[in-house]
Amino acid sequence: MNFPTKVYINEVVLRDGLQLEKKLINVEEKEHLFKRLKSAGVQSFEFGSFVHPVRVPQMANSGELYSKIQQAAGDADLIALVPNLKGAERAAQLSVKNINYVFSVSETHNLQNVQKTTLESLEELHEISDLCIENKISLDVSLATSFGCPFEGEIPTDRIVSIVHQVTELNINTLTLADTTGMANPKRVFQLISLVRSEFPKQKLGLHFHNTRDMGLSNILAGMNAGVSHFDTALGGLGGCPFAPGATGNVCTEDVVHMLHSMDIQTNVDLKELLKASHLLEEIVGHQTPSYLLKAGPYDKKYPVPVST
Amino acid sequence: MNFPTKVYINEVVLRDGLQLEKKLINVEEKEHLFKRLKSAGVQSFEFGSFVHPVRVPQMANSGELYSKIQQAAGDADLIALVPNLKGAERAAQLSVKNINYVFSVSETHNLQNVQKTTLESLEELHEISDLCIENKISLDVSLATSFGCPFEGEIPTDRIVSIVHQVTELNINTLTLADTTGMANPKRVFQLISLVRSEFPKQKLGLHFHNTRDMGLSNILAGMNAGVSHFDTALGGLGGCPFAPGATGNVCTEDVVHMLHSMDIQTNVDLKELLKASHLLEEIVGHQTPSYLLKAGPYDKKYPVPVST
Repeated sequence: MNFPTKVYINEVVLRDGLQLEKKLINVEEKEHLFKRLKSAGVQSFEFGSFVHPVRVPQMANSGELYSKIQQAAGDADLIALVPNLKGAERAAQLSVKNINYVFSVSETHNLQNVQKTTLESLEELHEISDLCIENKISLDVSLATSFGCPFEGEIPTDRIVSIVHQVTELNINTLTLADTTGMANPKRVFQLISLVRSEFPKQKLGLHFHNTRDMGLSNILAGMNAGVSHFDTALGGLGGCPFAPGATGNVCTEDVVHMLHSMDIQTNVDLKELLKASHLLEEIVGHQTPSYLLKAGPYDKKYPVPVST
Repeated sequence: MNFPTKVYINEVVLRDGLQLEKKLINVEEKEHLFKRLKSAGVQSFEFGSFVHPVRVPQMANSGELYSKIQQAAGDADLIALVPNLKGAERAAQLSVKNINYVFSVSETHNLQNVQKTTLESLEELHEISDLCIENKISLDVSLATSFGCPFEGEIPTDRIVSIVHQVTELNINTLTLADTTGMANPKRVFQLISLVRSEFPKQKLGLHFHNTRDMGLSNILAGMNAGVSHFDTALGGLGGCPFAPGATGNVCTEDVVHMLHSMDIQTNVDLKELLKASHLLEEIVGHQTPSYLLKAGPYDKKYPVPVST
């Protein structure tokens, strides 16, 4: 097995992590959480999305949040998810420096998620790319349902490769294959990523997994084996797409970081500080999260030997 | 990555799975659960343990259970855990055909678990081996805390290899390295198993993981990559050692079987029937289990496309 020496964590709790939460999280709470994560060493954040506030109310304060955290971010990346040109224009107006444009390789999920065909979303990518070049914005692209669609099932490899080909013709930063509803398995991850890496060797790749069927960490392991070292994770394992039935939490940041550290893989993140942020998250959302580490503590925690009485 | 074409599941819910449950499960309930698992295609069961009933009350009816399920088992293996010669003698008296002798590679945990040093347990193994030969009993050995001890931390590789050496001098069936409290990580699993396989190429190896820090399936993946295809799992992900602080559930049978099937790895188990057994388990124990599959359903479950109104 092959493992990288260092992995890059993109923290998505402020976007994907919170968007299914029923209680609206205010901008001060999000700022507080951001600062805790930043001081734990997180270097990259998907901080929100510029989507219609009626469709995803939890993201309505993303612009306000950006203005509040921009300074504290320092050299960390602050990435805004956008589903269309309108969202990208709003991000540009606010001087956001990093955009992640998301569309789905599944026609049916793309229609549900952004009311466009995949071809229409690909065409819009060209306009967004022009806008980003003009405004010196770094552009990432995420391909939703790359490992299966809850409506269509597995998406044919040829279709995915064809879409990746069209995306990589533009000069984008990170291309992320996203497993929107936790349908990926380690074999499929290893095979698809090995293929995409061999066909597009110059493209920086990221992976985005959900832990719906407990294969999140296994899929990261398979992704690392196929040469990827850039992963989306969400604190506490919160998250899910509002327009994909059966969607549940992202892979949990602290559980991923803990696994990586136990394997001598660096992340730049301090696990103890991360666990403090995870406690704060539970306070903010008002319920327990699926985090394992918050309950179990790290693998090297030692217990006192009971004394016989 | 290398994967086997077939994996052998040893179902331990009736032993490891139930032993931390507070509500005592009666012999009829255990029998009912066994029959459901048997009809789902499970071929190997750790059905109980011959330990002191005061120390592990949940296992007190193991002998009675054996007499009830022996016939229905057909050609499936029924394995009794024993912690000492006395337990092995009791198993032999009941004509049990398969014994799993467990001791710990951690001195401290072995003293807590069976009130013996590791050396004393190794000496007892010789007596148990003689008893098994005399009674034509197949003898397995499980080495607890092989991937870390909650009292001592990581156990040195040299010590583990030395113990494995002494065990394999006897003619035992399966030697299982057990991660008693979920401290293993995929790198350690891959490295330790690769080493043990190269030093003892003729010894059949099994692996036993707990999902305490969500690395259970990842550790199975690493184990398969190192050439192992024999795993202990527990229905519903129940389980834990009463004498190891912080112990939580085993890797969940249905989650493991689902991952394997999604990777085109055969198990001889019918997932749908397994999920019925898992529902029954929740009824019997009276609470939800950590099973992911019971909540999410399999990866190829499709949802209807919502109709716009």
